[in-house]
This record gives sequence, structure tokens and C-alpha cells, in this order.
Amino acid sequence: VNDILSRTRSGSVAALGEAALIGRLRLWLGRAAPDAPHGIGDDCAVLPPIRGAGLITVDPLVFGIHFDGRVPPFAAGAKLVKRNLSDIAAMGGRPKAAVIALAMDPRVSVHWLRSFYRGAAAESLRHHLPIVGGDVTRLQSGFVATLTLLGESAGRVLTRTGARAGDRLYVTGTLGRSLATGHHHRFQPRLKEGRWLAARRAVRSMMDVSDGLAKDLRALEPRGAEARVAAAALPRRDGAGVVEALCDGEDYELVFSLAARADTGSFERAWRRAFPRVRLSRIGRFARRGSPMEAGERPLNSLRGYEHLR
Amino acid sequence: VNDILSRTRSGSVAALGEAALIGRLRLWLGRAAPDAPHGIGDDCAVLPPIRGAGLITVDPLVFGIHFDGRVPPFAAGAKLVKRNLSDIAAMGGRPKAAVIALAMDPRVSVHWLRSFYRGAAAESLRHHLPIVGGDVTRLQSGFVATLTLLGESAGRVLTRTGARAGDRLYVTGTLGRSLATGHHHRFQPRLKEGRWLAARRAVRSMMDVSDGLAKDLRALEPRGAEARVAAAALPRRDGAGVVEALCDGEDYELVFSLAARADTGSFERAWRRAFPRVRLSRIGRFARRGSPMEAGERPLNSLRGYEHLR
Repeated sequence: VNDILSRTRSGSVAALGEAALIGRLRLWLGRAAPDAPHGIGDDCAVLPPIRGAGLITVDPLVFGIHFDGRVPPFAAGAKLVKRNLSDIAAMGGRPKAAVIALAMDPRVSVHWLRSFYRGAAAESLRHHLPIVGGDVTRLQSGFVATLTLLGESAGRVLTRTGARAGDRLYVTGTLGRSLATGHHHRFQPRLKEGRWLAARRAVRSMMDVSDGLAKDLRALEPRGAEARVAAAALPRRDGAGVVEALCDGEDYELVFSLAARADTGSFERAWRRAFPRVRLSRIGRFARRGSPMEAGERPLNSLRGYEHLR
Repeated sequence: VNDILSRTRSGSVAALGEAALIGRLRLWLGRAAPDAPHGIGDDCAVLPPIRGAGLITVDPLVFGIHFDGRVPPFAAGAKLVKRNLSDIAAMGGRPKAAVIALAMDPRVSVHWLRSFYRGAAAESLRHHLPIVGGDVTRLQSGFVATLTLLGESAGRVLTRTGARAGDRLYVTGTLGRSLATGHHHRFQPRLKEGRWLAARRAVRSMMDVSDGLAKDLRALEPRGAEARVAAAALPRRDGAGVVEALCDGEDYELVFSLAARADTGSFERAWRRAFPRVRLSRIGRFARRGSPMEAGERPLNSLRGYEHLR
């Protein structure tokens, strides 16, 4: 078990105090934290220049919701960064800079927090992403780390709107049982894949799968059409059933639609050349509402994904 | 009393559910929330173009820490935006776009949250600041709203480093008793004043006063020098004593240093022409450590400001 709260006052962030803690955070972030004014230490941080369209996303990581004592703190810190990277990947973008706001119980363990920050730093460095600022504040109980990520487009910004009836549906990787298998903190965000897809005009809409495919896919549905998925085509993770693959959430894979007129064979061959180790599955299509079902297809509107406020 | 938790389940955000809540947040933000891809509704938001240097800052607003049931929710929402605007003001910048991440007890009242968001929207619109995205997540108890604010420089970026021994010290407005007087949520961030100051070369360093002048001023101290303040010159708010003015925090005023060679008289006259209704006080100077004290001066190193993790 990885204790987030210190058993002794001397091991807590409260005992360390604010000024010393901020010094430690910078130390733990290491090369991931540039100096002010391009990093921590002033009222704002000065950003690196953004080329192309600027992108922004924010995702908190909450103890008891997005991770718990079974997740090593290093992996939890990495997950904070990766969840946000997955949103940048889903637009075909490149990460540029991040800030982290911490709100936490003063009894949080310095030892635990060090691993958390080292995990965040390692993941940031892997993507050449500077952590340029942040804030630390007290919370009566609990731990909320909120990362805001800035990115830039690498050309076209691939959004959720743009699909048309007839488009084929694809998903990367495998789906389901993310919590049970530890995938929810071990995944790698699909940044390269996202940029590759955004560069292809036949790819018309994209998003990342975070709340379960059944729930998320609805956001891509064009007017007058519905997503129909062939259960047999779903790429399932380690023993996941069809409902788990569709509803579990935390997959952090990309789902996208490909124009009906595109040659699926040559598209899929190009993918395999670019990403020989990343599975790509054609799982269904957007069909006009009311049109006849094809063999093996099922509509998704009877299923629910992850509900954040339940 | 402004109840943050709903007394009935039907009045809670949990009863509303995530999808409906996000719809309401957009409705409450109104004109402050542009449509996707430049606003809420995709994996990332596409940012407006940033001219000059980009600036970023993040500040959470925590129930029980930064506000409580005595603060109307409309004012609390406005404070979330204003705290961050004050950081942009402190660099001489202009706000460009913001995202808000909410982590909250599912029992939070929809009615309360509506006023909070309307307050945030009103303050954003006043500064032509779009709220372009966000996230909503559950917290076992409590309420944490984290706003990340992007800005751009309006020319020079005025940082905390740049002061020299001999510089005069100035502060805008009045200091102390911010909590007792309600200033902590009624203040107006000094954006115009910050830009005016950044445009003047003789102004060498600046920050906003948020944790108390005594603590904050140390961040401006040049090597080998210390801040010395004349107690009689401190602009005190509504009956505040000297220690309250120096240590209370949440003033959200600007403190800056002016080059020793600058003509203080003509500088102060120019200020009064530009901001006839905003008090400006020359409160002291940066003196070489060990140099003799002048009459009425005191060093600040014996005093402490607000400690965030106590």
C-alpha cells in the first residue's frame, strides 16, 4: 500500500511548510521545470511560442476517484500528465507547456508526494513538455491535482465534428477492464498516432475514449445518423466482455471516423506500416437512423458509460 | 447564509447528472462561453491567437479556505476569475482565455452553483475573457474550482526580478483587513494599472500582494539588499493596524520598485493623471543590507504573511 497521508507530522507537507515545499516541487520536477520567467517563480509563467493553432485542456486527478492507494505514486503522477496528453492526442496536437495546481490535506506525506512529482516529471520529459507553473493550497481532506495542458496543432486540428453518415468507425488498441488490469495508469497517450491521423483528410472526426466507447461515441454522431458497432470486431482487453469493452472507460484510446469513399484496405496498410505494434480495429459505422441493421451490428444507445457525478 | 450543499437530493448536481450539468454550465456562462472548437465541447479548445509573449497562471478557489458560506456564490465565482486576473495584472499583461476545472461533493446545490458560474461569467465578460473549457469531477467532500488563465503581454513583461538596491517601493490601493471588510471578494484586479506600469522603463519589478506585503516583498528583493518600509507611509484599509497591513494577505494590490534615478514627483503626477481614483503610496525602498536605517523605517524580515499549508 502506498500511504498518501503521513503517519507522523514530521513527514507531512504541513511540517515542511509552503516555501520549502515549493522548493522541493521544483527539485523533484528537475529538468521538467524551467527557471522563471519561463517557469515557476513569478506571478505568471512566460510561455514558449505557440505555432499553428493553440490548444488547451484541463483534467484533475482526484485521490479516491482517479487513483487510490493501490496505484504507486510515481504512476499516479504520470497518469495526471498522460490523461491530459490523451486530450491533445485526440485533436492531433503536440504538447507545449503545463501547469499543476495542488489542493491537498496538509497531512499528505512528503515522501509520497515526491514520487508523485517524479512520475509527473518523467512523463513530461518523455514528451519534451515543460511544467511551467502551478499553485499549492490546503484542502480539509483529500488530494486534487489539476493539470492544465497547452498544445499546438501540428497542421490540421481534428475535432469531434465532421463525421458523416456512412463513415467507418475505427478504434486504436484494446478496450475494457482498464481499472482491473492497471491500464488506467500504464497506458501511453496516442500522440504520434493522433498527429498521423489528423494529417489524413479521409479521417473526419476523432476523440479519445475516456468514459467508455458507448458513451463517448455519441459525441461523434453526425445529425441523422447513429453509431452501429459489430460486437465481434471490438478489440477487447484481457478477458473483457463486450459490455466491459463498451462501458468501462479509462481506455485512453483514439476513436475516429473514416470517410465512406476512402479505401479501407490501403488506409489500414498505411497504418500498419506507420504503427506496426499498435492494433487498429474497424468496429462499425455511422448509419442513417432507421436504416436496416447489418448482420452482427448493434446500436449503442442502450448502453451507458462512466457517469462523473454519480 | 449561502448554502453550498443542497438540502434535498433533487437540488444537487448529482441529481442533475453530468451531461445536463455541463449543458447548464454553458448556459450559465452564456456569452462568456464560445462554441467548440473555440470553447466547451471537444477534447481540447482551440485558443484565440496570442500576440506578444504568452502568459499562464493557475489559482484554485477552495470552499473553507478562499471563501465560505458568508460570501455570496456570485461573488465567489467572480473571485475565482479575479484572483487569476490579478496575476496577469502583476506581469503587465492582458487576459485571453480561461478554463475551469471543478472538483466537488455531488451534494453541491445546483442553485448555488448557478450563481457561482454567473459570477464567474460576469467577471469574465467585463474583461472580454472567454471561458473556453473545463472539467467536472466528483470529490468525496468539499468544493475546489481551479481556473487556469492565459494571457499575453501588452509589450514588456514586467517580472519579479529586476529591482536594484536604491529602488523606491510603491504600492497601489490600501492594505490589510481584507477578510474582515470583504475586500477579498470585492476587489478589482489592477489590469490597466499593471499595463501602464509595465510600459514605464523606470518601473523595474512588480508583483501582486496576495500573501501579505511583508512576505511577498521578499520575492522582489535584489541580491544584497532588503526591503525597508516606513510604517507611517503604509496605506491602511478601514482601521487596519501596521501589522495587519503588512501580514493579512488577499490585498490583490500591485507592489513595484522604481529606479532610484527616476523623478518620483513627475512619476506620481503621471500616475494621478492616469488613475485619479487609485491611491498610490511610496512606502519605502530597497536598501543595501547593513546600511543605516532612515527615520521611521523598519525591515520586514521579522514578519510573516499567509502560510498556505499551515
